[in-house]
Order: sequence, then structure tokens, then C-alpha cells
Amino acid sequence: RENFIHLCNPHLEKMNFFFFYHFALGTGTHFFFFLFGDVKFVCVGGSPFFFFFFTAYIAEELVFFFFGGNYPNICAGFFFFSMYKVGPHGFFFFFISIMLHELIIFFFFAKCSNITIIRFFFFCGIGLEPGSVVITRQSVDATFKPQFEQVILGKTVIRSTNLDEQLAKELMQCSKEINQFNTVIGNTMCTLDFYEGQGRLDGAICLYNEEEKLQYLKEAYDSGVRNIEMESSVFAAMCNLSGVKGAVVCVTLLNRLEGDQISSSHDVLVEYQQRPQKLVGYFIKKSLGKV
Amino acid sequence: RENFIHLCNPHLEKMNFFFFYHFALGTGTHFFFFLFGDVKFVCVGGSPFFFFFFTAYIAEELVFFFFGGNYPNICAGFFFFSMYKVGPHGFFFFFISIMLHELIIFFFFAKCSNITIIRFFFFCGIGLEPGSVVITRQSVDATFKPQFEQVILGKTVIRSTNLDEQLAKELMQCSKEINQFNTVIGNTMCTLDFYEGQGRLDGAICLYNEEEKLQYLKEAYDSGVRNIEMESSVFAAMCNLSGVKGAVVCVTLLNRLEGDQISSSHDVLVEYQQRPQKLVGYFIKKSLGKV
Repeated sequence: RENFIHLCNPHLEKMNFFFFYHFALGTGTHFFFFLFGDVKFVCVGGSPFFFFFFTAYIAEELVFFFFGGNYPNICAGFFFFSMYKVGPHGFFFFFISIMLHELIIFFFFAKCSNITIIRFFFFCGIGLEPGSVVITRQSVDATFKPQFEQVILGKTVIRSTNLDEQLAKELMQCSKEINQFNTVIGNTMCTLDFYEGQGRLDGAICLYNEEEKLQYLKEAYDSGVRNIEMESSVFAAMCNLSGVKGAVVCVTLLNRLEGDQISSSHDVLVEYQQRPQKLVGYFIKKSLGKV
Repeated sequence: RENFIHLCNPHLEKMNFFFFYHFALGTGTHFFFFLFGDVKFVCVGGSPFFFFFFTAYIAEELVFFFFGGNYPNICAGFFFFSMYKVGPHGFFFFFISIMLHELIIFFFFAKCSNITIIRFFFFCGIGLEPGSVVITRQSVDATFKPQFEQVILGKTVIRSTNLDEQLAKELMQCSKEINQFNTVIGNTMCTLDFYEGQGRLDGAICLYNEEEKLQYLKEAYDSGVRNIEMESSVFAAMCNLSGVKGAVVCVTLLNRLEGDQISSSHDVLVEYQQRPQKLVGYFIKKSLGKV
């Protein structure tokens, strides 16, 4: 008896093709059944290095797909995940709070002073034309409150997620001086999930309809949210507690009020992705007196 | 005026040296002030590829630390993060739920059947000798409830985090057949944070004392928790909803009732880390009739 995967998302059946952003693979460009239909076991976790060695190990153990010890990373050159096919697949993940804890201790031991931390990335906007840059005023949770909720020793602790106002203004001024793209200061919604958490219709699980999704995103817009991403609240909370100036600068790749999948061309997206680094690069040069 | 970092953790002052697990750097082996004391700007986010290009860009922009276009990854060969020093540092992170959403859709398009997903990793145990392997029965949250709480369209949704009982038993049987290390079936606590979320005393922020920490960990043990990690609850919830058999197999690198930092030697840790892959490798071979 063959147990096939069932998707808890009726919206996917209406789609003619699907692009996996984080794997850099698409049903329009890869013949999924022939490439992956034979997969029976999947191993997830760890880091690319960890999985590189596991891939070699399992290939040798099974004497199967053994290409002289070299396993191509199927997603090589793209972002987020590594994938090796031997039979098992490998991916990586970790969480920004760990990195910030260690980074703050790191700066402490290095006796750094006047530290400015800027997180920049590309993500989705709400009510903005794609390619707009959002400098975060406050990071808000999925109910639009400017707070980060965490469970510590079994008890819920609430922390403030305001970001440095002066730094946001300085970055806004830099964008005016560059004068190459639209930039706004606004609230950023921080979610723990990319699909259901952001009201997407294209995840593996989706139990709401398009109307409910749009109503939610419009409520977000009315409360001041201009973009959505997944790390800003813990980033802001930890900067506040540690006395570090923090900023979040994201470019929006699409307007979520108009859809869930990115429609811009590859070249346009590459140009969009360079905008936060252009802005941050200019800001650093200016701060060092090199502009 | 120089604003130095302040750590919200009185426990760190009592430590003679600090090892950064996720950066593979230690105050005992690296002279932090000379290596990093000059850092003023830090950019975080994205992926290693993204930051590789940003590193080149900013170096060229600032005509600073320009080593012919090659920037060594300071953490190369180790796990979790990449780090490039030009001035800015780069790291990566992403979240397992995204990967699972796409993976499940991925299997759907590939028409895969009878899929078994095994997450394996190394993390901390409670009340077990280091090197023990824990096969998860239920993933529980930081208040020991077997549930995954998620905000969807602004509303809280609770999902079950039981894992496949039969699969856990089969893995346990495999461990008995290998007979090389201690293995138990137990509950796994899943937290969203490695430091405060797991009651550690060695994070950048820590506002509780050792007694409170130990009381919390003992309560966890009494409720059936045998190890702690950070992805199992969303993993279990999504496997359940998608009809995929899921298992979580972790090796414990230390017993949290006895401390927060790992004390075993490098060689011993390397051997521990191989245990889940030995177990999973044997299980796959056995399932394929090759044992």
C-alpha cells in the first residue's frame, strides 16, 4: 500500500507550477517525479558541514549513488539550504537569538564600543511597490503589538521591540542622499513562520481562504506595518537589553496585497537585493567620514 | 564617549574563559580584543552566499581589508555560522518550518510515497550520561505540554506534537541490535531560544539564578523530558498534518543538571555526534533489507 503525501492546502491545486524559493528548484524547470519520486528516507537538521559528512557516510554504508566521494549540492549557488541527494537530503537551519547571544558576549570580550548592528535582508512588503526599502521603526508581533514574548523557566516574559529612532532617521537621510529607490520608515511584522504565520496561501498547510488572508494583511497595514520578516523582534529586544544600537533594513520583493509568489524577473530581483547593501554601505562610509 | 557593551548576566563574570560553540572561537584560544576590538558595524542576516557577495562589495566600497577579492570564512570547517571579517561580519539562519512546508509540497509534486522523515542532531540531555541517544516520544513546549502553538491570521492555533510510536520503537530495536551506546525513548523539550529559553546561565542575558534554573530542569525531568532542542515541535506538528512518519533522534552532549558548557574532549564529541547517524544508517539499511 502506497501512502502518498496529502497537502492541507486547497489553493495549491489551482497553481500550474510552483517555485521553491528556498531550494532554488521549480516544477517548471525540474521534473520532480523522476528526480525525487524514489525518495523514501529524509534526514534533516544540523549544518551543511555535518550533512556533507553524513552524506558520504550513508552513501558508503549503502554502496549506493557513490560518486567517488563527491556529492553535488543540488541548491549550490543559491541561498538558504544545501541539499545533497544520495538517498537522504541535507539542510541547515539555526536561530538568530543564539547568534546574538554569542555576538553580544563576543563584543564584550573584544571590548568593542559604540557598536551598531544592522540586520538587512529581502522580504515581503504590504502596500508598497516591490523594490521599496523599509527601515523598521518598531518590530511588531503577529497581533501587531510592539513586543517579543518569550518563555523563560516556564514563565512568559514580554520585551520591548522598539529600534533606535536616531539610527533609523540617519539611514533615511542616507537613502535621500543616494536618491535611487523608494524608502520608508515603518513597522515590521515579525513572524515565526513564513507560510501560515504570514497568511500565505502557498504553503503545505493552509486552512483559511483568500478573503480572510487579505483582511488580515489590511489590518496589518492599517496598524502601520509595511513589511514582514522573521527575525526583527528578537533582534530588537536583545539590542535594547544590551545597549547596542540596532537597525533593520529590508527591501520588499513583492506587495503581499497583490499575491504570494514573486513575479519580478531574476535581474530585477538581483537589483532589488542590492538596495539594502547599497544603503548600509553608504551609511557606513558616511559614518566613517568617507562620503 | 565610548559606550561599551553591558551583559545582563552576572554569571559570566565568574567564568575564566568562554567558548563560542556556534562560532568555533574561544577566549582561551583567540585574543578577542586584537581580533575584533576595532569592530564598529555589524551586518547580520541572509545566507552565506548573500554575505559572501556583500563582503566583497563593502570591502571594495571602503577600499579596506581588500585581500584580492578573497575573504576567509573565520568559522570555516565548523558548524552553524559563516563569518567574514572585512569590517562587517556575516551569518546565516533560517527556520525549519519553511523547509518542511516546501519539502512536503516537494514530495507531493515528486509523487513520493511512504515517506519517513528523521531529524537527527546533537543537543543537551537532562539526567542522562553524555553520549546517550534520545528517541523522541512527544515533543513538549517550555511548559512541558505536548503542543505547538502558532499564531495564524492573528489567532492562536494549537497543534499536537506526538511522533510516530511505531517508528520510535523500530529505532529503539535498531539501537539494541547495534548495542554500542545507551538509547532511551523520552520526551524532548523544544524551545525557541538556546540560552534563556533553555535556562542556561551562560547567555548574554540571564536574569535568574542557578537554583531557579535547576528547579526548572528537575521539573522538566519529572514530567518525562530527557533532552532539549529547538525544532522538534514544528517538525512533529507538520508531520502529523501531512501524513508523513516522523522521528527525532538526538545524541546528548552533556547533562544539563551538571552544567551548561560541554566538558568532553573533541574526539569524544566527534564520536558522540556519529551515534545518531549510525543508528539512522542502520535503520535505513534494515528497512531496505540490507542487514
